[in-house]
Amino acid sequence: MSAEFLNALKRILTADEIIDDSALEPMLIDERKQFRGRALIAVQPRSTENVAAIIRLCKEHCIAVVPQGGNTGYCGGATPDTSGTQLLLSLRRLNRCRWIDPDTRCVTVEAGMILENLQQLADVNDLLFPLSMGSQGSCQIGGNLATNAGGLAVLRYGTARDLVLGLEVVTPNGEILDELKSLRKDNTGYDLKHLFIGAEGTLGIITAASLKLFPKPSVRVVAWLALPSIEILAPLLLNLQRSVGDCVSSFEYISAASLGYVLKNVPDTRSPTVDQDEHSVLVEFSGFGDAEPFQTLCQNALICAQQENLIRDAVFANSLSQSQSFWQLRETIPRAEKLMGGSIKHDVSVPISRMAQLIEQLKPAIVALAKDARLSIYGHVGDGNIHFNVLPPEATSIESFKQAKGEEISAAIHDLAAEFAGSFSAEHGVGQLKAGELVRYASPERLALMRTLKQALDPANIMNPGKVLRTS
Amino acid sequence: MSAEFLNALKRILTADEIIDDSALEPMLIDERKQFRGRALIAVQPRSTENVAAIIRLCKEHCIAVVPQGGNTGYCGGATPDTSGTQLLLSLRRLNRCRWIDPDTRCVTVEAGMILENLQQLADVNDLLFPLSMGSQGSCQIGGNLATNAGGLAVLRYGTARDLVLGLEVVTPNGEILDELKSLRKDNTGYDLKHLFIGAEGTLGIITAASLKLFPKPSVRVVAWLALPSIEILAPLLLNLQRSVGDCVSSFEYISAASLGYVLKNVPDTRSPTVDQDEHSVLVEFSGFGDAEPFQTLCQNALICAQQENLIRDAVFANSLSQSQSFWQLRETIPRAEKLMGGSIKHDVSVPISRMAQLIEQLKPAIVALAKDARLSIYGHVGDGNIHFNVLPPEATSIESFKQAKGEEISAAIHDLAAEFAGSFSAEHGVGQLKAGELVRYASPERLALMRTLKQALDPANIMNPGKVLRTS
Repeated sequence: MSAEFLNALKRILTADEIIDDSALEPMLIDERKQFRGRALIAVQPRSTENVAAIIRLCKEHCIAVVPQGGNTGYCGGATPDTSGTQLLLSLRRLNRCRWIDPDTRCVTVEAGMILENLQQLADVNDLLFPLSMGSQGSCQIGGNLATNAGGLAVLRYGTARDLVLGLEVVTPNGEILDELKSLRKDNTGYDLKHLFIGAEGTLGIITAASLKLFPKPSVRVVAWLALPSIEILAPLLLNLQRSVGDCVSSFEYISAASLGYVLKNVPDTRSPTVDQDEHSVLVEFSGFGDAEPFQTLCQNALICAQQENLIRDAVFANSLSQSQSFWQLRETIPRAEKLMGGSIKHDVSVPISRMAQLIEQLKPAIVALAKDARLSIYGHVGDGNIHFNVLPPEATSIESFKQAKGEEISAAIHDLAAEFAGSFSAEHGVGQLKAGELVRYASPERLALMRTLKQALDPANIMNPGKVLRTS
Repeated sequence: MSAEFLNALKRILTADEIIDDSALEPMLIDERKQFRGRALIAVQPRSTENVAAIIRLCKEHCIAVVPQGGNTGYCGGATPDTSGTQLLLSLRRLNRCRWIDPDTRCVTVEAGMILENLQQLADVNDLLFPLSMGSQGSCQIGGNLATNAGGLAVLRYGTARDLVLGLEVVTPNGEILDELKSLRKDNTGYDLKHLFIGAEGTLGIITAASLKLFPKPSVRVVAWLALPSIEILAPLLLNLQRSVGDCVSSFEYISAASLGYVLKNVPDTRSPTVDQDEHSVLVEFSGFGDAEPFQTLCQNALICAQQENLIRDAVFANSLSQSQSFWQLRETIPRAEKLMGGSIKHDVSVPISRMAQLIEQLKPAIVALAKDARLSIYGHVGDGNIHFNVLPPEATSIESFKQAKGEEISAAIHDLAAEFAGSFSAEHGVGQLKAGELVRYASPERLALMRTLKQALDPANIMNPGKVLRTS
């Protein structure tokens, strides 16, 4: 059966579209090395037509398909299972720009284009593609869309979903659904693209996308804010937004502990303030026009916030390199955690008004579960998203800590987020890792409708089975 | 059978939840008086639970349900058919604010809340709900979402869809799907809300929504621009956006003919410029901070555009009342057309870079079809959306003109929009009026997937049957 399938597959594809066993190994392990799978075969088709032909063949032979982009996901969504019966389909050769239309501020690219290349493509056209994140040098736009990636520019520009005008998708029937379009408005029936965005390849394979481009801000202002207390997180953001609107493009919370881990473990870092404040926010404003009036606008906004006791102190980055060093403090927190041996990671969201309460209630709850555990609390608080990471007590390995306490700790964090009308996965998705959490936290009506959609679109369950939705 | 149904219905609902025959008449005719239907009975439930109970009963008795909001739609989507067997379900009594959370910039309201009331609710909290349109005094937010309404603020804030954080929906099974939430980020499985937004009640009934609120801009600048030629429409918009970013909040095209109809037929109007320019744009900028630096920013942007020959002349509104009078010229175009006897209306979109070409090619094409027909061309060109309306020759009635030429003219306009990768319905939806156009212009794969979804969610076809998707 599988020999027949493999022979048929080799008739469809050219030799270079089949991935050599020697190149396969890194594709079978996920970014965070939590999952290792096997594959019947791995392919890298060069055209949408070939993706469609592969899916038709898989459907005929009941072979499950696992799509893979840059393989940078955190939840094992692109790793095949251990059966060795699944086909691994890499989109990396499908990486062209189909067309770019600067006047319409739209670009259409294939799924395998690396995010950084897409950013550069926008940039040479004097436009901005705002999606950005740590993995941008290797993640691919198709994967970004399949997981509805978040990252550093959500506050101003939204998540990956919000950047899409149209999609090309290969359906579980092996048909090509061409919904590529550059229209800002089109009310002609169901908006099908949203079915596939964030569905992690379980309803079809995104092969190309028409994406919004934006004018490039001409001026940026970066400041490090010391807060008088954590309760003012939400009021501070609202206060700044009332002063400057959506020019607040980043609003990142950094706890003293997380900052301390960076200062101690990452070379060439130093604190922006003399005191190490318990609660800091890295804020970035981006705007248009001349630098000076915009800087004045931002400074006035911060002065006004300080007068209302929403800020204890504010340090402006007075050079590009100082901006970068402020950002480095935020962006190297995961690296510092890794250098300390690793952490149990969480990616929860709550309504922004509940964020301070969530953090304050979680701290003692986690300490009660694991005395001497160390917390690393930071994240995209402007989006209501916090990474509440837990490091083992000194001299305890992450592995034994995870085994002893991991489940309990994660359950406590996810439970409290749920109690506060929040989510157990703000931006990392579900994949394999959190499929159990989805069953636990989703309403029966939500799960039933998700299953109805999966059954309707992929009755044979060949599209990335076991990811997101458990069949059992 | 229907007596049994009616008796059961009366056991579920209180007397005031059943609409009296005497109040029924205006609910059976659509806004533009194109469709007149009949109803078995009309109801106005006061709670989501009662909506769900009604749907369960309808499902049991195979009674079709037509949801209705403010009944302001342009495509007959809320008008029952002529059989007299359908239940008309008004959401107007379901009109409370459930909660508002200013710090999270989120409000949760029921479907029947009138748009203007929602705007005011945001306003008293010193926030903005940006959706706005001519019918805002009577349209309801549920209908706005069911049709993914557009309107005057799309360029900066997006369509109705973009303003939604979460929904409560009664499914065709009569279950309540509670996806109300105030999260900016939540990647936990399929994003179900987008299934119902823009589906015009064919997949379920939206009963409540959690919506984004925005900081209120503190300063507005309105200007009337005379263009040297229509070709520069798209480059001009991009040029302005490069200068001021998304502070360009409206960019409305007005042809000399449309302006002329207003000046001649609407009292107390006068042209902003001495010459009546062939092509004008009403631009509005909105921003934050002090008025003066923002006004300078906008003035510099227009001076720069003029230096690049993208503007022939610009007249700034120098008072609030002058801003209003500029806007009045744009907003009373439909009224002027009505005073002239009416027009055949179109609502097409194309990629913005193709807009000028679309207009220039359509003009002679329509004249070739109907000599002496008068054109009224205007619209939300910043969104790629144009209303290309055709008035009969003088002394010809709109009715006889429609009958003689209507189909041919609309087909020509929709065909050319499609040829330019555009849409036959940018913001008005499909309803009954354009269900045939959907079949004509959608790809077979798109139609098949829409039918798969309809069949999966509403196998008994009781939810607003005959709207959007024709069953035959």
